[in-house]
Amino acid sequence: MASPPLFDLKTYLQLKRQQVNDRLVRSLPTAASSTIADAMVYSVMAGGKRLRPVLCLAAAETVGGRSEDAINTAVAIELIHTYSLIHDDLPAMDDDVLRRGKPTCHVAYDEATAILTGDALLTLAFQLLASPQGTAGVPADRRLQVIDLIAAAAGYEGMIGGQMADIDSEGSRIDLSRLEQLHLMKTGALINAAITTGGILGGGTSEQIRHLHQYAQNIGLAFQIIDDILNVEGDPALLGKAVGTDQEKKKSTYPALLGLVESRKLAANRVKEALQALEYFDRKADPLRAIAKYVIDRKR
Amino acid sequence: MASPPLFDLKTYLQLKRQQVNDRLVRSLPTAASSTIADAMVYSVMAGGKRLRPVLCLAAAETVGGRSEDAINTAVAIELIHTYSLIHDDLPAMDDDVLRRGKPTCHVAYDEATAILTGDALLTLAFQLLASPQGTAGVPADRRLQVIDLIAAAAGYEGMIGGQMADIDSEGSRIDLSRLEQLHLMKTGALINAAITTGGILGGGTSEQIRHLHQYAQNIGLAFQIIDDILNVEGDPALLGKAVGTDQEKKKSTYPALLGLVESRKLAANRVKEALQALEYFDRKADPLRAIAKYVIDRKR
Repeated sequence: MASPPLFDLKTYLQLKRQQVNDRLVRSLPTAASSTIADAMVYSVMAGGKRLRPVLCLAAAETVGGRSEDAINTAVAIELIHTYSLIHDDLPAMDDDVLRRGKPTCHVAYDEATAILTGDALLTLAFQLLASPQGTAGVPADRRLQVIDLIAAAAGYEGMIGGQMADIDSEGSRIDLSRLEQLHLMKTGALINAAITTGGILGGGTSEQIRHLHQYAQNIGLAFQIIDDILNVEGDPALLGKAVGTDQEKKKSTYPALLGLVESRKLAANRVKEALQALEYFDRKADPLRAIAKYVIDRKR
Repeated sequence: MASPPLFDLKTYLQLKRQQVNDRLVRSLPTAASSTIADAMVYSVMAGGKRLRPVLCLAAAETVGGRSEDAINTAVAIELIHTYSLIHDDLPAMDDDVLRRGKPTCHVAYDEATAILTGDALLTLAFQLLASPQGTAGVPADRRLQVIDLIAAAAGYEGMIGGQMADIDSEGSRIDLSRLEQLHLMKTGALINAAITTGGILGGGTSEQIRHLHQYAQNIGLAFQIIDDILNVEGDPALLGKAVGTDQEKKKSTYPALLGLVESRKLAANRVKEALQALEYFDRKADPLRAIAKYVIDRKR
């Protein structure tokens, strides 16, 4: 008897990225219409792995829902992610000149435009979340819950709080538990929101959401550990951004605190725990399983 | 027979500002909890006229609704207004050091903190709009409509687009219709959203909303014209910010295009039209009537 065909992540990612990019293009203004529209399109369509939106769609399907009911939310989360990169790259923040292999927004345009473009993408994200298109099949109170979760994840108790703590801790040594806390906020919260809201929009039960949440917490930390490792030994050409910048800024990172070997082990453990959380689900969780392995093997 | 008592705007504003400030304090984090929390509280509680939230509450009451159903939205709009001031004041934008009589956020803290604080206030606004507290009596689909309207008003087709156009036009002369278009976006859109959503949350009919919208368009422009005039001949001590800055930056303003006398006439005409739009309503519109007159007589 033939074993079931292996899940083909490459094709899956291609399809889902296409779905995300198509909706992104439809959600963004026409580039030619104004400077701000141009900068919005430039920043969002510069590429990127689209990891968060794909996770959101995959989570909806994992609980037996339709990815169409989550596509608007997936796209909104990618807009929020992109806005956070634009603002993080600003001279007053990380002062980065390269992102996704292209000049950062404030380099391609100017600082004022980059600040406003980030603001505009964040605002557009919430407009999308509130608009009836793309989530028409989902009850209004569930859509409000999704907005609440995403705003909390992106706000001062989540992503923004993590970024602030990251800046505050530059140059000073923090311990592992503080670093983990920081990353759970800075990158973990939005990844978590992507997966949890995908599950909610897919009509998941509270038990299913609980397992998705466990998966998300672990995958989020694994992702960040690998990010730190790639900043040490990654290939700038593949990454589309500079490496070695964390060390330059004396940032507390996993490799700085634990060394590369231990960091890699920690990431592998996190992925193992993420996979355990998925044992609750059937084959519909195969995309999330494959993404967990991809997160740790990725070169960019 | 005694004539009906005149409406007492001063007491009304005091009461409504108190209602807004109380809810703001409850919605904001505890200042001591982190740098970002501290900067959020500093910026929001620095004072300010609270014009937008008061308009929102007054609009809800004008259509016969309860201000309690609009208070969360009123507060969210004030958070959005405050975030826009923080970002506009940044060195890369207007580079202002004084706001509401206090050092601007990037002066009191630093640029990175100011950028993140603005982001956090914008995000918190949408969290408030989605949270069940404060709008529990309003149906979920109406609350989604309010989020959609506010995001559209604050985004690249509204406030942010207006700010970008304002920067783009610095140093170059634009004509009156272009200036009006710019201000309808930059300040008009959010004022309009405050009034319109107040009407919606108060349960207004589409005919009532249409009249509120007409009032809002006119009052928004009158407000901006007076703002331009105050930047020429206002008292910095009363305003809590510097004057003469528009001329320094060669900004196109109403006084620059029309002179002070004509500008004042234009504002008075706008207020007249705003009052005409309110003829549709009974005495419950008295606060909006009084605010229209206040907008033009204000010294700050």
